[in-house]
Amino acid sequence: MTTVGILGGGQLARMMALAGAPLGLRFLVMDTAADACAGQFAPLLVGDYRDESALAEFASKVDVATFDFENVPAESAEWLASRVPVFPNPRALAMAQDRLVEKSLFRDLGIPVGAFADVGSLDALRIEVDRLGGACILKTRRLGYDGKGQFRIKSPADVEAAWQALGAQAGTVGLIVEAFIPFERELSVVAVRGRDGEFRTWPLTENWHVDGVLSASLAPAHVDAALAQAAYAHARRLAESLDYVGVFALELFYRGGELLANEMAPRVHNSGHWTIEGAETSQFQNHLRAVLGLPLGETRALGHACMLNWIGEMPDAASVLQEAGGHWHDYGKEPRAGRKVGHATLRAEDAVALAHALARVGVALGRQAQVAPVVARLTA
Amino acid sequence: MTTVGILGGGQLARMMALAGAPLGLRFLVMDTAADACAGQFAPLLVGDYRDESALAEFASKVDVATFDFENVPAESAEWLASRVPVFPNPRALAMAQDRLVEKSLFRDLGIPVGAFADVGSLDALRIEVDRLGGACILKTRRLGYDGKGQFRIKSPADVEAAWQALGAQAGTVGLIVEAFIPFERELSVVAVRGRDGEFRTWPLTENWHVDGVLSASLAPAHVDAALAQAAYAHARRLAESLDYVGVFALELFYRGGELLANEMAPRVHNSGHWTIEGAETSQFQNHLRAVLGLPLGETRALGHACMLNWIGEMPDAASVLQEAGGHWHDYGKEPRAGRKVGHATLRAEDAVALAHALARVGVALGRQAQVAPVVARLTA
Ligand SMILES: Nc1ncnc2c1ncn2[C@@H]1O[C@H](COP(=O)(O)OP(=O)(O)OP(=O)(O)O)[C@@H](O)[C@H]1O
Ligand SMILES: Nc1ncnc2c1ncn2[C@@H]1O[C@H](COP(=O)(O)OP(=O)(O)OP(=O)(O)O)[C@@H](O)[C@H]1O
Repeated sequence: MTTVGILGGGQLARMMALAGAPLGLRFLVMDTAADACAGQFAPLLVGDYRDESALAEFASKVDVATFDFENVPAESAEWLASRVPVFPNPRALAMAQDRLVEKSLFRDLGIPVGAFADVGSLDALRIEVDRLGGACILKTRRLGYDGKGQFRIKSPADVEAAWQALGAQAGTVGLIVEAFIPFERELSVVAVRGRDGEFRTWPLTENWHVDGVLSASLAPAHVDAALAQAAYAHARRLAESLDYVGVFALELFYRGGELLANEMAPRVHNSGHWTIEGAETSQFQNHLRAVLGLPLGETRALGHACMLNWIGEMPDAASVLQEAGGHWHDYGKEPRAGRKVGHATLRAEDAVALAHALARVGVALGRQAQVAPVVARLTA
Repeated sequence: MTTVGILGGGQLARMMALAGAPLGLRFLVMDTAADACAGQFAPLLVGDYRDESALAEFASKVDVATFDFENVPAESAEWLASRVPVFPNPRALAMAQDRLVEKSLFRDLGIPVGAFADVGSLDALRIEVDRLGGACILKTRRLGYDGKGQFRIKSPADVEAAWQALGAQAGTVGLIVEAFIPFERELSVVAVRGRDGEFRTWPLTENWHVDGVLSASLAPAHVDAALAQAAYAHARRLAESLDYVGVFALELFYRGGELLANEMAPRVHNSGHWTIEGAETSQFQNHLRAVLGLPLGETRALGHACMLNWIGEMPDAASVLQEAGGHWHDYGKEPRAGRKVGHATLRAEDAVALAHALARVGVALGRQAQVAPVVARLTA
């Protein structure tokens, strides 16, 4: 009997436990919140990752550990890794926690990336914004997620306001300024690497964000095969350089025929939720197979799938459940503004049928705007 | 927040909880065993169905109740139904608990069934065996499962031995003698009926038993469409006559172009496990959708699937996990002779690919005999 420990008890841990049960696994989830939603289907240890005695208890009860949350302090991950096997390794985690380190690594690996600079002062920011051409995004180096800790600089005139908003964090989590990429598309590679180095990717996914938060994903993305291959090659190079084990996502911007890496998420990823019904093996099960050293499952798509995120509160399920390929995912969370509370996946044998299903659901839920870009892509 | 209570905490309850989590449901499972395997992923109330105070506690904590086990005493089901909605209804449960009542209902509904008779004494058994032509099976009317409580009578000479084995139960659970059907195939319809009467079946499944226990299932069965339609019509008539809500299985014998009903299981069924990966919606999720009055999910098959049961102990997973369409289900049970501890499902886009995958797994696990009849059917 193998017990998998998961640091973080949100929807990713929850879906991981549900996907791992058929492998005969037990789980122990650790979270600071007593109502962490993974706790509805797996034993939950309430505690802080920075509390060594809580972490010691966690370590004593698990055979292997992984993450649902990448902002676990690097020291906690290191400490844990000295006691039980931890996948992905703490070095990969630390890399992904820091946008500056991450983007520097992309560049070192020859993975194209937009212009960026570390900024420590208002003056430095001013100089970099000018150098980058004016349109930029100021971001915290660490602890950002879902677009939090970001300030959009449209022109040099916004520099003061940006510094006002985030400058205080220059000395704590650090700041990075990035050239704003007027991208045509956002894409992600969700990939998995086994303990033995076996590497697989799911078909490339196209993503749409609203206010910095993922709104919809479409897979397979409608891009040409060469572009997808280039994206997979970037993901592979990255995984190999980090000796990465498990699932991760590489987020990419697409513009003028080119890919630019945005960031890497060292865990199962929201843009891979469609794999639960839309692929032969889900990202959740393959993450566990990788972590446990089991053979990886086939990642091919089963038809065409679109995932719609539900933010804040769950809509009525009926219109999705009525669709032939309609699948519902309620994370069992309390509604709260901005919170990811669930998602739906629509699946169909062909792109046109998927577009029709999306359009129906969009109308039924009054969410035409959410489905519109996906429908447009499918019917282009 | 809706809590579904499940009487019985075996693998069916476990797979139901895993399938119901995405619907945002909570579960409470009741079982007499503290180590019931569903308890690994859902709260478990340890208690006896016949203990009114335990049942009252269960009733007070759930919004709706269902079964993983059909041999819950009819009185317990009735008692529960007077407190919370129970699906399927206790009448359907009671019918399916008694082979005599069940076969009489089949006959009354015009669903063809082999010859059978109630037997209360050795003399009566002798007379019926003669009337039925000699080759028979003596079975307990109630509480039989997985071929338990059965005695095969090959000729009138076996009557004494049969009575010796089961006669004592004539006065307790009752006995029925059935003509032995030298069937060519065993088939099952797994079907679901919603609260509003909506009825759907998954594609017909062919099953192979070893020692009275299911060994392998293949879906869609290789039979002609008219035969499948006849089977679906029988299932529908049965469900409507019982005002059945939820998933059930109708087991059928096929011989000389004809179908004969064997029995009905008033719950999700082992011969429907392939639907987890092999159908758009699994039997487990559709059972819950039905019980909750939600729209039923599409039941179409995704390619071709074969389920292999693991009895007694789990084989090594690797050979199945290595297959492109290989899926593993370990129920988290202690090994024990005769116990259903897990299953595997192999899925492929076409019958020939499925046959090849089965043959490889059969060799790798030294289970050629288990896969052979399925491979033969697929390549016929
Ligand atoms: N340099 C950029 N140019 C243009 N758009 C950007 C840039 N950086 C971020 N964005 C937009 O903001 C979104 C979120 O940004 P980013 O991925 O850096 O943030 P995050 O908080 O780490 O998000 P997540 O939690 O989704 O990974 C991106 O998906 C993209 O839509
Ligand atoms: N009348 C019959 N003629 C031929 N074979 C039979 C007959 N009755 C039962 N069998 C064989 O025994 C198997 C188990 O019988 P049955 O379904 O009656 O038992 P059970 O204990 O209720 O099984 P389960 O738990 O699998 O439903 C059948 O699938 C079939 O292979």
